[in-house]
Amino acid sequence: MPHIPSYRFSRRIAATPRSMIREILKVTERPDIISFAGGLPNPAFLDTTGVARAAEAVLSEDGCAALQYATSEGFLPLREWIAGRYKARFGLSVDPGDILITHGSQQTLDILGRIFIDEGDAVAIEAPGYLGAIQAFSQYMPKFHAVPLGEEGPDPTTYAGVLEQARPVFSYVIPNSQNPSGITYTTGCRKELAGIHEESSTLLIEDDAYGEIRFNGEKRPSFGMLLPREKVVLLGSFSKIVSPGMRLGWLCASKEIVDQAVTAKQASDLHSNILAQRILCRYFQENDISTHISRITRAYSAQCSLMLRLMDELFPGEIRYTRPDGGMFIWLTLPPGCSAMELWRRALKENVAILPGTPFYTDGRGDQGVRLNFSNSDEEKIVAGMTRLAGVLKGYLKEC
Amino acid sequence: MPHIPSYRFSRRIAATPRSMIREILKVTERPDIISFAGGLPNPAFLDTTGVARAAEAVLSEDGCAALQYATSEGFLPLREWIAGRYKARFGLSVDPGDILITHGSQQTLDILGRIFIDEGDAVAIEAPGYLGAIQAFSQYMPKFHAVPLGEEGPDPTTYAGVLEQARPVFSYVIPNSQNPSGITYTTGCRKELAGIHEESSTLLIEDDAYGEIRFNGEKRPSFGMLLPREKVVLLGSFSKIVSPGMRLGWLCASKEIVDQAVTAKQASDLHSNILAQRILCRYFQENDISTHISRITRAYSAQCSLMLRLMDELFPGEIRYTRPDGGMFIWLTLPPGCSAMELWRRALKENVAILPGTPFYTDGRGDQGVRLNFSNSDEEKIVAGMTRLAGVLKGYLKEC
Repeated sequence: MPHIPSYRFSRRIAATPRSMIREILKVTERPDIISFAGGLPNPAFLDTTGVARAAEAVLSEDGCAALQYATSEGFLPLREWIAGRYKARFGLSVDPGDILITHGSQQTLDILGRIFIDEGDAVAIEAPGYLGAIQAFSQYMPKFHAVPLGEEGPDPTTYAGVLEQARPVFSYVIPNSQNPSGITYTTGCRKELAGIHEESSTLLIEDDAYGEIRFNGEKRPSFGMLLPREKVVLLGSFSKIVSPGMRLGWLCASKEIVDQAVTAKQASDLHSNILAQRILCRYFQENDISTHISRITRAYSAQCSLMLRLMDELFPGEIRYTRPDGGMFIWLTLPPGCSAMELWRRALKENVAILPGTPFYTDGRGDQGVRLNFSNSDEEKIVAGMTRLAGVLKGYLKEC
Repeated sequence: MPHIPSYRFSRRIAATPRSMIREILKVTERPDIISFAGGLPNPAFLDTTGVARAAEAVLSEDGCAALQYATSEGFLPLREWIAGRYKARFGLSVDPGDILITHGSQQTLDILGRIFIDEGDAVAIEAPGYLGAIQAFSQYMPKFHAVPLGEEGPDPTTYAGVLEQARPVFSYVIPNSQNPSGITYTTGCRKELAGIHEESSTLLIEDDAYGEIRFNGEKRPSFGMLLPREKVVLLGSFSKIVSPGMRLGWLCASKEIVDQAVTAKQASDLHSNILAQRILCRYFQENDISTHISRITRAYSAQCSLMLRLMDELFPGEIRYTRPDGGMFIWLTLPPGCSAMELWRRALKENVAILPGTPFYTDGRGDQGVRLNFSNSDEEKIVAGMTRLAGVLKGYLKEC
């Protein structure tokens, strides 16, 4: 019998990095592990009672509409709520028709990669950059151009150089409490970057997954206020303020872009879960989301402060780390010669999980970086975990 | 000031046909229109009470887990339920680990296109073929090879010729009550096609969206029973038996394929809505789905029979149409010289919506075909709609 050749997979999927986070999370599911590796919101602030009330109302009042096919653009009252939130937070006037509801930020990133990236196209991304974005965009085989992050955001001169030389189709940034670094761009940095984009053909994509979770510091403008609508795409998510399990997020852009994104959404999965969209919308009608967000913010702020205080007290002086003013992550930099992967292995032996930095870089660098999550934790875990991690660090630093 | 060039969109999205169904559905939302254009299940069988009970139980008992991040593979008890259903329906032994939960069939198709199609790869598809599949695959820019459908399925000799000459990466088929034709492959045809795939490197993708909605006729084997696991991917959906609004479906394949599909799923949207997965699973635990499916099947069967009887009585003899034994659609073929687009325009003037056949073809043909939906209707609408359509057809046939 002749040998029947087997199928083979696409070049695209071969080019897609596996989500290291998800692989690592599998390890950290062990109950004896104290994990700072994941990126989960604190389950204490998942309002199951409020969501249950909203679900009951939706299913008893609009049950058929909530279970039937719906439009690709998303549930209009939910898009109106988002438009209202842009107005309240930034004074930004947004037409609900310029908003597309997606199955979470990851899908928004996939859709943007899909409608903008041809193989070999240049894409600008922060270094370190969000690994979910690297994964989503990688499928469309761009050439990544990394823009190093400083404490105030990317250096404008370097940023301008990348845009001028590489001419990226878009630049993807998380200006508020960035994942993984925890850095928030200063207002001055934002204005300089906006000025650069004004003169460039590169679209700016602002992912604002963490902007609502801000502990302190002055209010910063959205790029949506600094750039004309056709030069910026605004991304948002309900994962950090209500529920990640519902997988709902959005993009807000010019009509021309939304039009293409809707085609990509149709081809992706027709429309976002309409039961979840209606439950979420009802939840916002029945609950004061600002109060809920304040509670989350206070708790995360306290957890972040505690972690930083312990790091200040216990960690060797050679370890540098960011001091976030919001979000869910602290970024730690090891001294030259140390490896985050090796630290990960040693910490795991002490039942502490961290996330090594390599998957946040597009060029194999990052093994000096470590992402620590403070949201999905509590005082006891933070104290025990930081104490153990300090011990591991002290031992490891003597060797490298 | 120099002219700033604007962004441009990817070749991929330019190659993706807009979903004509969704554009046409917008027109048919007018309450004065009797529509046979859509593909919606009958809202009378959306069990809002049962789903509400399941939602209440999930949110009160496992609320936090239902709102938190979850695994990309999908909720294990739901995958176990699907495996059990394969056993009950076909005697097929399936490991729940070989099942990936997706955001509905459209996403399954997108994922399969993503992991298998490189630009220019050959893909085999029925003619007429499911437009959602054409749309999903088109994004990855394959070369489509159409296999004409006869009353018993594709002609095996023609089918073998396509596989031999074009060497498609996969062949996508809907053997049960196909969308749009309503045709069910005979058991003999299935066995012949399976034999052809045994000798070929082409993977067979069986989409079984309508297999549970079968009115009459002998039981037909799934390709999962006729081919070794590594040669077939089985697709399923909850849209036709419980709710399309929840956007949940699955694929079942070899571990090697599931592994790649999980990577694509992670990059697409991390995981499927876990609240909806848990509600659905709970719904199956608390309700007898077979009884529910019997109710749907009886109603659709009666609606299909009524429609066929009226077509037999009222339509001009030159009009040919299929006689489905399940599913949701009848396919109508106009005499040479007639245009389905023109018929669509004329019918709309009489407030009747039909779906012209062109989007079901990958080569611009199909304007002699019309898809009629009988599921989302009732006796009164079918009588009024068929009477009006018969009148339109009689007038139009005199002119073409």
